[in-house]
Amino acid sequence: MKIAIDMDEVLADPLVKFIELYNRDYGISLDLKIEAGNEIYHHIPENINHKWYDYINEKGFFRNLPLIEGSVAAVKKLQEKHEVYIVSAAMEFPNSLEDKYHWLAEHFPFIGWKNIMFCGEKIVSTDVMIDDRAKNFIDFKGRKLLFSSPHNLLLTGYERVNNWEEVLEKLM
Amino acid sequence: MKIAIDMDEVLADPLVKFIELYNRDYGISLDLKIEAGNEIYHHIPENINHKWYDYINEKGFFRNLPLIEGSVAAVKKLQEKHEVYIVSAAMEFPNSLEDKYHWLAEHFPFIGWKNIMFCGEKIVSTDVMIDDRAKNFIDFKGRKLLFSSPHNLLLTGYERVNNWEEVLEKLM
Repeated sequence: MKIAIDMDEVLADPLVKFIELYNRDYGISLDLKIEAGNEIYHHIPENINHKWYDYINEKGFFRNLPLIEGSVAAVKKLQEKHEVYIVSAAMEFPNSLEDKYHWLAEHFPFIGWKNIMFCGEKIVSTDVMIDDRAKNFIDFKGRKLLFSSPHNLLLTGYERVNNWEEVLEKLM
Repeated sequence: MKIAIDMDEVLADPLVKFIELYNRDYGISLDLKIEAGNEIYHHIPENINHKWYDYINEKGFFRNLPLIEGSVAAVKKLQEKHEVYIVSAAMEFPNSLEDKYHWLAEHFPFIGWKNIMFCGEKIVSTDVMIDDRAKNFIDFKGRKLLFSSPHNLLLTGYERVNNWEEVLEKLM
C-alpha cells in the first residue's frame, strides 16, 4: 500500500517554533496553548506587526523544527509493510525547500529521495493520505486520515488519528 | 483535464548546457549531436573524469538552462483549457530545488506555486503526463505522451510527441 504523509504538524512541529520566536521577539507566553479550532495567529496580539508568514519565509525556519512525538519510530514501522512517501506543500515557501530536504535527511534518513515530494496541490495517487489540513483531501481518491492538530479539532466527518500510535493501530 | 509536464528535456534543455560545460572544461565539440538511443555521457571520452552528475549537483546548473523550443507559448495555451502541473524529479539533486523554482518563476510566471511539484517517483493523479523518461510512466494510470529526446528515440510502443506543436495538436 502507498501512503502519503504530510510534514508540518504531522512529522514536524512548527507551532513550538512559532511560540519560541514570538516569545523571543515579543514576550508571548512560552506555554501558550492554542485553542481548538484556532490557528497560531489567532493568539498573537493585534498590535504585533510581524506576521507568522514572515517567520516561515525566513531561511532556516524549517531546518530545526522539533519532531512530532513518535513520528520517526512510527514511519520506520510503516515502511516495513508499506511504501511511504513524504508529501509536503512546501512550494508556497520556496525558502523552505532545502531546509525541509535537510531536515528529512537528518531525522528520516531511511526515506530515500524517490519517496519525497514537495508540491503545491497534493495531486498524488497513493492509497492513503495522512494530513492535518482537510483541504488536501478534496481531490484525493484514497483513504484520508486527519492527523489532529489544534486548528482541526472542531472538524467532524473525517477519519481522525490523534497521534502516531493511532496511525499504527489503523495501518499495521 | 489535469496535465503533468516534466521539466528537463521537455521545458528546459540541459543537453545544450552540458555540451557548453564540457566544451569549456575539456574542448568537447559544441555542435555535438547526440545519437538516437544515447545519453550525453555516451559521447564523453572515457579519459574525462568529470562525470555529468558532478555538473548537475553544482548549484546554478539548472538556473539558466535554455528553453525547449515553443514550450512557453504551448504551456500558456494548454493552461487556457486545462489544469497544468509542472512535475520534476528534482529530489535526486537537492541543489537543484531552488534553481528550478526560480527558473520556472522567470520563464513560466503564469504557473503558480500550487501547480509545481518536485518529487522523486512521479506518483501523480493527473489525466495526462508529458515526459521524456518512460520509467515515469510505469505506475501512471492516465494518458502518457513520450516527449522526444535523443535518449528515447529508439523506444517504441508509446504515444510520442516530437515537439510542442504536436502536443498542442493532441491536447487542444
